[in-house]
Amino acid sequence: MVTKTTAEHDTKVVLLDAGMHLMLQKGYSNLGINEILQVTKVPKGSFYHHFDSKESFAVAMINHFDSHYAAEVFATLSNMSRTPLERLRDYCESSKSVMAKHGCRHGCLIGNLSQEMSSQSETLRRELFKVMSHWRQMFADCIEEGQRIGEITDERSAYDLAEFFYASWNGAITLAKTTKSTEPLDIFFEMMFEDVLRPNSIAQ
Amino acid sequence: MVTKTTAEHDTKVVLLDAGMHLMLQKGYSNLGINEILQVTKVPKGSFYHHFDSKESFAVAMINHFDSHYAAEVFATLSNMSRTPLERLRDYCESSKSVMAKHGCRHGCLIGNLSQEMSSQSETLRRELFKVMSHWRQMFADCIEEGQRIGEITDERSAYDLAEFFYASWNGAITLAKTTKSTEPLDIFFEMMFEDVLRPNSIAQ
Repeated sequence: MVTKTTAEHDTKVVLLDAGMHLMLQKGYSNLGINEILQVTKVPKGSFYHHFDSKESFAVAMINHFDSHYAAEVFATLSNMSRTPLERLRDYCESSKSVMAKHGCRHGCLIGNLSQEMSSQSETLRRELFKVMSHWRQMFADCIEEGQRIGEITDERSAYDLAEFFYASWNGAITLAKTTKSTEPLDIFFEMMFEDVLRPNSIAQ
Repeated sequence: MVTKTTAEHDTKVVLLDAGMHLMLQKGYSNLGINEILQVTKVPKGSFYHHFDSKESFAVAMINHFDSHYAAEVFATLSNMSRTPLERLRDYCESSKSVMAKHGCRHGCLIGNLSQEMSSQSETLRRELFKVMSHWRQMFADCIEEGQRIGEITDERSAYDLAEFFYASWNGAITLAKTTKSTEPLDIFFEMMFEDVLRPNSIAQ
């Protein structure tokens, strides 16, 4: 019984891992369930044992992605050997490396699905909103810490800065995909870390 | 003969207009050619008389959108009764009104297609890149004018500022779609026009 439950759990994780990988490459609409089944060699019946539909699979996948990726983001943003501003930069540098490694093709699964599906599925929009709010809060906490030690401007709220940071980074990622170049990310680095987040020089 | 040519041209424009409208709502992959034919009452043969495939239709649609929308953007950005900074704000205000009118569902056709299709179709990516470069240049020209009269910071190049402006605005639009709120756009306004583009107060 334990073995069966473990095997079922494993199958679910195999499907979610493959789904994340394929959806990052192809988007939601371009990816069929059959392709996930072919890649994973999981029978259709097993898929529908775990998920009612492609949409419910995507919901599980978004949460699966969040629980894994958010742990990485959190680890970067709470690395006490680095200052808050350095941690934010580490996060972006790490994402930039992944983008560069894949020829600026993939982007971010949450950003991609948000752009593609927010207006198509209220169910997916709500899940994506939940994940985005979670990440924005992690950025806001880090920014607030930077504000407390005078490393980040306090002329705007940590919440507003986090939202602008997150939106602008996503926009730069999209532009990097279209231009097939990391230049938009480099410009983001310059503008965000040298100008936007920097404390006003008069106030220093 | 003239009538036939005009009718053919009209059919093409009818298809492109309907395609723009539907693709803005549904994205590329979620929209089938049959749906466009149903809405426009154009026979399938006529569609394939004008376009080889859905992809070549999308290429024509991107250029159709660009020639119409770019004219509007250009009119806003070259309105000499407003200062360069006011013109950039007018552009964003106008886009924000359209977003609000449609319940933050639609976003921008070029931004949507870039996110969805840049990694799926090299043909579409190239067209989208061309359009984005065109718009960025219009923003850069306006920003450069603002720099000349001291209304916009000259600590960064007009090109870099334009790229950051455009990427961040697209990112804010995506976030507005996912949050179903204009709040990310309002935060963009605050950050971009009050902080990023503003000349450094020491330098003034």
